[in-house]
Amino acid sequence: MSVSTAAIIDTCHALRERVNARLEKYVEQQPGVPQRLQEAMAYSLLAGGKRLRPILVLLSCEACGGQAEAAFPAACAIEMVHTYSLIHDDLPAMDNDDLRRGRPTNHVVYGEALAILAGDGLLTLAFDVLSRDVTPGETAAACCADLARAAGMAGMVGGQVADLEAEGRTVSSIEELEGIHRRKTGALLACALTLGARIAKASNEDLHRLASFGRCLGLAFQITDDLLDVCGSPQNLGKAVQKDASRGKLTYPSLLGEEASLLRAQCQVVEACKWIEPFGERGRRLESLAQFVLERDH
Amino acid sequence: MSVSTAAIIDTCHALRERVNARLEKYVEQQPGVPQRLQEAMAYSLLAGGKRLRPILVLLSCEACGGQAEAAFPAACAIEMVHTYSLIHDDLPAMDNDDLRRGRPTNHVVYGEALAILAGDGLLTLAFDVLSRDVTPGETAAACCADLARAAGMAGMVGGQVADLEAEGRTVSSIEELEGIHRRKTGALLACALTLGARIAKASNEDLHRLASFGRCLGLAFQITDDLLDVCGSPQNLGKAVQKDASRGKLTYPSLLGEEASLLRAQCQVVEACKWIEPFGERGRRLESLAQFVLERDH
Repeated sequence: MSVSTAAIIDTCHALRERVNARLEKYVEQQPGVPQRLQEAMAYSLLAGGKRLRPILVLLSCEACGGQAEAAFPAACAIEMVHTYSLIHDDLPAMDNDDLRRGRPTNHVVYGEALAILAGDGLLTLAFDVLSRDVTPGETAAACCADLARAAGMAGMVGGQVADLEAEGRTVSSIEELEGIHRRKTGALLACALTLGARIAKASNEDLHRLASFGRCLGLAFQITDDLLDVCGSPQNLGKAVQKDASRGKLTYPSLLGEEASLLRAQCQVVEACKWIEPFGERGRRLESLAQFVLERDH
Repeated sequence: MSVSTAAIIDTCHALRERVNARLEKYVEQQPGVPQRLQEAMAYSLLAGGKRLRPILVLLSCEACGGQAEAAFPAACAIEMVHTYSLIHDDLPAMDNDDLRRGRPTNHVVYGEALAILAGDGLLTLAFDVLSRDVTPGETAAACCADLARAAGMAGMVGGQVADLEAEGRTVSSIEELEGIHRRKTGALLACALTLGARIAKASNEDLHRLASFGRCLGLAFQITDDLLDVCGSPQNLGKAVQKDASRGKLTYPSLLGEEASLLRAQCQVVEACKWIEPFGERGRRLESLAQFVLERDH
């Protein structure tokens, strides 16, 4: 383990704890909220997880010279959107998954109706938090616009539809595969970077650099995800492995082979780091995080 | 039919046409959006409907001295949220409805997975539209905050959960029934009024008056909805009737009887109109609309 890897693991651990504490606050029991709904939302939102997206929001804000403290609401909002997407993706009508982060999925515990509504509630709460807790209002509106575009029909939702449509039929082009992932996971990762940058009042040029960093990182992340499904351990991952192949799901290893896939991920990380070179010292933690994505085992 | 009823029907018709034209634009085919997703979203969003919420946004804006033109994005956003809630409520795991506005429901046509995602897409698009097309950013952020609160876990989503929980078991209090409806339909109706008012830069006092008007109107609307389920015609309604009773669903007529229910609706409309008396001539169209809610047959 390199020095920078050890340092970034510590950084991530510390930030993760602070994000978790804020997330807990946001889904505390409150008047007017049915208790089972609150439980179902908290069950998935507080289930652990890497908190990669929130950490990217915070590090991006710092890279642009802002205070991480101001970026916590946006960090929480993006994790809510990520969690809602996992709850809905796991539903019987979609990927029909029983296990997520080592625990039964939301609909297994709370039933389908409540799982759908818990997802709806988290997506809505994300915009509540962004619009209320990000200041000034101009920045809040810009953050809402970024998040809605990344999560919506031309972003994450569109990517999930494209992914479902591709399942089972023969897809052979790397372009189509990347088109799916750019929308399904890449758009939200790139959005994490722009949210942090907006809160730090970054220039348009820096916003563009960080969004590009996020898109490259997103692809690298997806490729390593596919590789972990082939060669990872269910213990480390907290979910079943080799699901993709058994479902006929298109993946990088199935299309390119394992070695070429890993190489492609490495190239994406190199490109990602190029985009943030101009940030110098302030971009180092983002750089280490990008390297770490390649080395992760879960 | 009174003169004011005829006039408000004309007004609603004209505004509805303009709202429909804007909604069509918002769900046009665009790059990156899978065609089936775009179709599924447009199918429900453009299925007709009264467009009550958008019309309330526009009339509220006018009542506060604003230009209706500036309020169209918010009018469209709230209809997107309403439509998403109908798509998700109709799902097999929820109310399991096959018919809506005289046509097969979204999941019957597009399947459950796409129906869930079309709903998610519309909810997200609502915040996209609000945050991007309402100006200035401060107002956009305030509108996003209103909508998120009204649609979220302490509003519409919470109301739907409470409604599902009440189904089948014996609920006998009018307070519980109204607690469900205040969240499930009332919060979004009240939000329609505050969105219009915010765009017109209304005072906090006027915001409060209009929100109160909306809450009263929401209850009146829900009571007449329940009454139409008992004594309406499926042709006019475009959906099956007497579903509530067959499901053991708690309704006003089942709790209070038809006559007392109608009286309660009338009282709510009287109270609603009191709240907007201070608006004088500019509030007349909202007043007529409130009266019309009592007389509607669909």
